[in-house]
Amino acid sequence: MTFLQEVVDILLAYIMESFDRSTKVIDFHYPNELLQRNNWELSDEPETLDDILISCRATLKYAIKTAHPRYFNQLSTGLDMVGLAADWLTSTANTNMFTYEVAPVFVLLEYVTLKKMREIIGWEDGRGDGIFSPGGAISNMYAMLLARYKMFPEVKEKGMSSVPKLVAFTSEHSHFSIKKGAAALGIGTESVICIKADERGKLIPSDLERRIVEAKQKGYVPFFVSATAGTTVYGAFDPLIAISDICKKYNIWMHVDGAWGGSLLMSRKHRWKLNGVERANSMTWNPHKMMAVPLQCSALLVREEGLMQSCNQMQACYLFQQDKQYDLSYDTGDKALQCGRHVDIFKLWLMWRAKGTIGFEAQIDKCLELSEYLYNKIKDRDGYQMQHTNVCFWYLPPGVRYLEDKVERMKRLHKVAPTIKARMMEYGTTMVSYQPQGDKVNFFRMVISNPAATFEDIDFLIEEIERLGQDL
Amino acid sequence: MTFLQEVVDILLAYIMESFDRSTKVIDFHYPNELLQRNNWELSDEPETLDDILISCRATLKYAIKTAHPRYFNQLSTGLDMVGLAADWLTSTANTNMFTYEVAPVFVLLEYVTLKKMREIIGWEDGRGDGIFSPGGAISNMYAMLLARYKMFPEVKEKGMSSVPKLVAFTSEHSHFSIKKGAAALGIGTESVICIKADERGKLIPSDLERRIVEAKQKGYVPFFVSATAGTTVYGAFDPLIAISDICKKYNIWMHVDGAWGGSLLMSRKHRWKLNGVERANSMTWNPHKMMAVPLQCSALLVREEGLMQSCNQMQACYLFQQDKQYDLSYDTGDKALQCGRHVDIFKLWLMWRAKGTIGFEAQIDKCLELSEYLYNKIKDRDGYQMQHTNVCFWYLPPGVRYLEDKVERMKRLHKVAPTIKARMMEYGTTMVSYQPQGDKVNFFRMVISNPAATFEDIDFLIEEIERLGQDL
Repeated sequence: MTFLQEVVDILLAYIMESFDRSTKVIDFHYPNELLQRNNWELSDEPETLDDILISCRATLKYAIKTAHPRYFNQLSTGLDMVGLAADWLTSTANTNMFTYEVAPVFVLLEYVTLKKMREIIGWEDGRGDGIFSPGGAISNMYAMLLARYKMFPEVKEKGMSSVPKLVAFTSEHSHFSIKKGAAALGIGTESVICIKADERGKLIPSDLERRIVEAKQKGYVPFFVSATAGTTVYGAFDPLIAISDICKKYNIWMHVDGAWGGSLLMSRKHRWKLNGVERANSMTWNPHKMMAVPLQCSALLVREEGLMQSCNQMQACYLFQQDKQYDLSYDTGDKALQCGRHVDIFKLWLMWRAKGTIGFEAQIDKCLELSEYLYNKIKDRDGYQMQHTNVCFWYLPPGVRYLEDKVERMKRLHKVAPTIKARMMEYGTTMVSYQPQGDKVNFFRMVISNPAATFEDIDFLIEEIERLGQDL
Repeated sequence: MTFLQEVVDILLAYIMESFDRSTKVIDFHYPNELLQRNNWELSDEPETLDDILISCRATLKYAIKTAHPRYFNQLSTGLDMVGLAADWLTSTANTNMFTYEVAPVFVLLEYVTLKKMREIIGWEDGRGDGIFSPGGAISNMYAMLLARYKMFPEVKEKGMSSVPKLVAFTSEHSHFSIKKGAAALGIGTESVICIKADERGKLIPSDLERRIVEAKQKGYVPFFVSATAGTTVYGAFDPLIAISDICKKYNIWMHVDGAWGGSLLMSRKHRWKLNGVERANSMTWNPHKMMAVPLQCSALLVREEGLMQSCNQMQACYLFQQDKQYDLSYDTGDKALQCGRHVDIFKLWLMWRAKGTIGFEAQIDKCLELSEYLYNKIKDRDGYQMQHTNVCFWYLPPGVRYLEDKVERMKRLHKVAPTIKARMMEYGTTMVSYQPQGDKVNFFRMVISNPAATFEDIDFLIEEIERLGQDL
């Protein structure tokens, strides 16, 4: 108990430090160097608790401060104190979600929360089904599995050889988990047809319909469309109403991958971007992204009741005994591929209680306001070129800015973001992501989900980019 | 910070209580009752931090005390203080395993620990690959995915329609995740051929070979054998050497599902049960079971290097940029289906440092000694009928014990375990699992993984079964 309290003291100090802008976001070292900086090896003999405390300190010393107000590197940032407390409680309760028997409260809280999320989507009376899974990629794969089963239930027993050639559709800007899922499910990545996106990154519905018709003419069976609400790079929202009309017309399962953008449903100001989501058959929504719930917290919501159970159940009699004394519909373990399942619900539930829906709304509105601020600030600033409203941009150092040779210019610009990023990490002052896209050279992608970030942090980021990139 | 400390105080009190034998394991209520006992609803408005503390207390009041020395219900029990501290630190660091960039220390610790585990398996110099996944079912599915890809790499792009009919083999006593995996992967549950197990629950190698030959004669392609090291119900270990000979002869991927029993590799006394595991192509090993690491902690170990990456990678350029400044082999996110991945490594690593390999060994040896104690205690005791050494048994209340009508006797015996279990939960004194198996009526399955359990707790369990079942 003394030991636990000592660890808590270390953690509290780390949290204080993480929120302090004068500390580094990262104390960066190359892998080989970090391996040598400390003894990380496992041995036969035990260590003392004092040694263990030293290991805890060393681990935190080299960790990234994901709660730091100037950490913008991923879609998941920030650290909410109630969420953290809830995760500590979860670890202490140390149980498993598969049955009501071993996780009565958590199973009920999952039930209550999923219902609430379905109401927010707009499904009648919050009816439907759902589950928390270990991340958006798994949630998306579960959705694809359900869509296939819905159309061809025999696939469960007989496999893909019993069904015609299936094809799925998603935007060229969608998350790579759609292809990963298709590879795993034995559908194959070639059967994921990538639909063109417009300039802003939104799927073009006419291209979707054209490709569906084309696939049908070849004798393929379209079974799954995954629309994206908040693409990873541009943060674009596919036009859900138009897509749902097409899905309805051709009788195809419509999934919405709202891992990133689904949280906008909590905002009265921004939820119009997801208009039409209520017509979807399923939706992925990761509260561990824009809602800043601690990792991992991803939900798959499904409109049809009972389908998850029949798709996945194997009725293992050693776990899901049918002669228990309570209502067995609360034994959720047979609804998914996982057997044991980590308790991911409590941190979301407790944060929701602490903030209320309006608290999440304010948090999300603020993140979007900061994005707008950044956009306005750099759109006419020397040396920046906007790529997209949400907020993807190039910084052109003076040496690149006035280059007339276009090929040489692109070549050098391509190296600017990686170099600035590497320098950011060396200095440890801030972190932001970059990537190329199609024929576009490396650009910065700024995502803001950290509730601790302010306008000043945005100002700092711009200054830092210019400071570190000036000479390139 | 005050709030976090108050939550810690609540958690510390809960931990003290959990280890106290005079407290209930569970304060049981039926789902509808529990829903009404508290206000669990989510609303628009925020609550005060005092209300949040009340919610934390209520949640713990109705939680199962999985750390209680008399909680035997699942394969995952107990609560290790170092493991718990490590999980609290993990929550505080709140990061993601996909790249070295955002989780430098954790990625390295995963590397160090997986290598150590491969050395313990017996793979040369600890070479090979691996990853921590969200549970044994997912690890087993990943193994099946790799086996399929190894034999038919074209399946990734072209799907199952490009390959012949694949068949997998596993014992009739294996975990249901093998069938779930086959259903998901588009192989189909009918293509999982169940091999007979002997009286003790071990797969019969001659039956395996017979069924492989039979499948080949039908033109099917055997691609995957999953041997079990520690079956869920009997705790049986399949004969790995004989199985590996067959796999070698027919060129089939050999997987060992050691989710439960893999930890015996840490015990010099018991590791012979897994002799031959070093010949396997892959192995699932869940430290969150017999090693009592907090949930979730499951590893998939793979003998061949590079295969996981080529099987699963999609090279999303927004995450796995190829122009970073550090060694990209530490970006592990493209090795698995998940994109984001929870940090499951730190609690195992820190516990290993605190206990040393010999500490885990002692803990495992003690659990097996307790099982033996229970076995010896009830094997000649009135009213018990042993079913299996590991330790499955019936308790026959006097009213059933002397019944001459065999059909009636079985019918009544089938109801004994569920009734006793329901009463255990009502009283909250202890929890143990039960299930039927094949034509065997409901029996108790006693698994011991709780490091806090003692001989006296075993004595208590027997007395409690007799007290609660006397009148049945």
